[in-house]
Amino acid sequence: MKLVCAQNDLSARLSLLSRVVPSNPSHPVLANVLLIAEPDRLGLAVFDLSLGMQVWIPAQTEVPGSITLPARFFNDIVSRLPNAPIEIAVDEVTTTLTCGSGHYQMQGISAEEFPALPELEDSQQVVLSAALLLEGLQGSVFAVSSDESKQVLTGLHLSTQSKMLEFAATDGHRLAIANSAIETPDIAVTVPAKALRELEKLLGRQETDLTLRFDPGQVVFEFATEQGMARLSSRLLEGQYPNYNQLIPKQFERQITIERQLLVSGLERVAVLAAQKNNVIKLSINAAKQQIDLSAEAPQFGSGEESISAQVSGDDLDVAFNVKYLIDGLKAMNSSEVQIQLNSATSPAIVRPLTGTKITYLIMPIQIRS
Amino acid sequence: MKLVCAQNDLSARLSLLSRVVPSNPSHPVLANVLLIAEPDRLGLAVFDLSLGMQVWIPAQTEVPGSITLPARFFNDIVSRLPNAPIEIAVDEVTTTLTCGSGHYQMQGISAEEFPALPELEDSQQVVLSAALLLEGLQGSVFAVSSDESKQVLTGLHLSTQSKMLEFAATDGHRLAIANSAIETPDIAVTVPAKALRELEKLLGRQETDLTLRFDPGQVVFEFATEQGMARLSSRLLEGQYPNYNQLIPKQFERQITIERQLLVSGLERVAVLAAQKNNVIKLSINAAKQQIDLSAEAPQFGSGEESISAQVSGDDLDVAFNVKYLIDGLKAMNSSEVQIQLNSATSPAIVRPLTGTKITYLIMPIQIRS
Repeated sequence: MKLVCAQNDLSARLSLLSRVVPSNPSHPVLANVLLIAEPDRLGLAVFDLSLGMQVWIPAQTEVPGSITLPARFFNDIVSRLPNAPIEIAVDEVTTTLTCGSGHYQMQGISAEEFPALPELEDSQQVVLSAALLLEGLQGSVFAVSSDESKQVLTGLHLSTQSKMLEFAATDGHRLAIANSAIETPDIAVTVPAKALRELEKLLGRQETDLTLRFDPGQVVFEFATEQGMARLSSRLLEGQYPNYNQLIPKQFERQITIERQLLVSGLERVAVLAAQKNNVIKLSINAAKQQIDLSAEAPQFGSGEESISAQVSGDDLDVAFNVKYLIDGLKAMNSSEVQIQLNSATSPAIVRPLTGTKITYLIMPIQIRS
Repeated sequence: MKLVCAQNDLSARLSLLSRVVPSNPSHPVLANVLLIAEPDRLGLAVFDLSLGMQVWIPAQTEVPGSITLPARFFNDIVSRLPNAPIEIAVDEVTTTLTCGSGHYQMQGISAEEFPALPELEDSQQVVLSAALLLEGLQGSVFAVSSDESKQVLTGLHLSTQSKMLEFAATDGHRLAIANSAIETPDIAVTVPAKALRELEKLLGRQETDLTLRFDPGQVVFEFATEQGMARLSSRLLEGQYPNYNQLIPKQFERQITIERQLLVSGLERVAVLAAQKNNVIKLSINAAKQQIDLSAEAPQFGSGEESISAQVSGDDLDVAFNVKYLIDGLKAMNSSEVQIQLNSATSPAIVRPLTGTKITYLIMPIQIRS
């Protein structure tokens, strides 16, 4: 195997791929990146047996072939090379990298030991714009559980609602649903959040169309890049995803319309006090003054209160929330105003942006002593 | 006590002061910032019994007085307030902060419990430009020992050489000396590096003159800021500072003149390999080719080599260094070319920038098996 490629192409891709490589791989070859030199292009792949990433970059290939190299180590060197052509030459598993006046030798592992990336059979297919996909992700993925023991809740659920793609995430305390304008055939899959976060990075700010393919066990995202192709595959999470739509109340006794940024800033300030004790803040609806009051107490330190004008309908109410959850949801929205709907201090509240991506954010109040 | 000040003045200063506050103070009041409301200005001070920082900002003081408030907590709230006037009102030790529609109450500790910041008596004085001081610091402070048990080596030694201020730092493995164009009377003090790093931050990019005052136990830096005055005081480190000038060889058998940035880039690449084993790199002087070769080996991974053109005088030599130390020194210089002088593979090498601040960087080679 022997080829020449551009340092900036290789470095940009390697830095994304090496993120996916497991720190403590079950087999040494999983810490490696697979290089496949084909005529005119170099394929690069990493795979942790769940998440796989493959990209192609332009290359002048003199001798086709393949090898695997330690991913992080290879990336550490390539990222520090000058932006110039890099020659990669492989003799058995000894790989020589030459760039300018630098020569690096490293010991690879035969490509034959690298596990095959999954192939889909009889898969269904959706074509969707990267921009709409990213909107859907940004409106929901923050609510995924980070607790690995929660299994299906560590994934984002993609399903069809009225022929459109719906994104849902919940960690048991809050639920975020983003409704996209992506037409889709019937789909109901739960994709590990990690795979989607890596997909976000792999997409960058590129405007493109992706092909999403899935079978009962796997999902594959594929798209063209400036350098060539990119493909991300992931196993799907098994298990029944909660029937979350039934959690959303049909009617509300109280409604608040409020400037999103003012609310976030106020919450961030009372959060300083709330951080001293369980992150609990109190939200008091004041219909007479057409405002809401946010307050928190920090034992030993003190207390804080913010008043924010709002359009309020319904009776006064005091309700407590985890301030971090409220801020997470509000920051995932980008409308200038949001609507908060609720019934009581013990039933779910719903936050929705008034414009932009359709997001439904459900958050459970915290019980407070009267 | 009651006053009004601007959020941006208060926040900018508090964020610097709260860095100095100890995390586990020996007395609760040391976690607090002292506020002193004087006519037309608010004084703020923190003190960890070694390092003290005092600043003043403009204020409309209605009722003079003083209080101490939990520094980090106070900073966390103030930094999140909108850029608007803040009213601070104190009743006994209960302090109320009002800004826009936000009200915060916190419990302070009486100012009487705050330890007095040290006053200098019979002190000597140097007036110096902030720019020259920062140059001297940047050329030397990186070589200070970070090992608290090394006592006097955790400080920067300021002394008079030919009537000018010299900065010296050593951790026992390397020595950095920066010679400034600051005229000074006789001085020989060792200032904790931490104090000088905080001074750098407090100065920011401001062009100003500082007054440095010192007595046998303390040093005080004082300067005018856009908001008012700022003062940093620190105890001096006790103990005899090593007589470092005697370590510098008088003559050299070998000399290399080389582009600094090329050398740093090459070192950073072979450092990836060296990082796998003790950070050792080999520097080989090649007089015939007028170049130096940098190389490192990483057991299990591979090896790397970089060749860099240089003006070389003297015989060929292989010498090994800790690559981190070399990079640290080269990065503290800002000339386009540097000169490396050395005698043998077991005696100190000296690196000097060809232009800019006069820096002498001594680094001991590492013994390698032949």
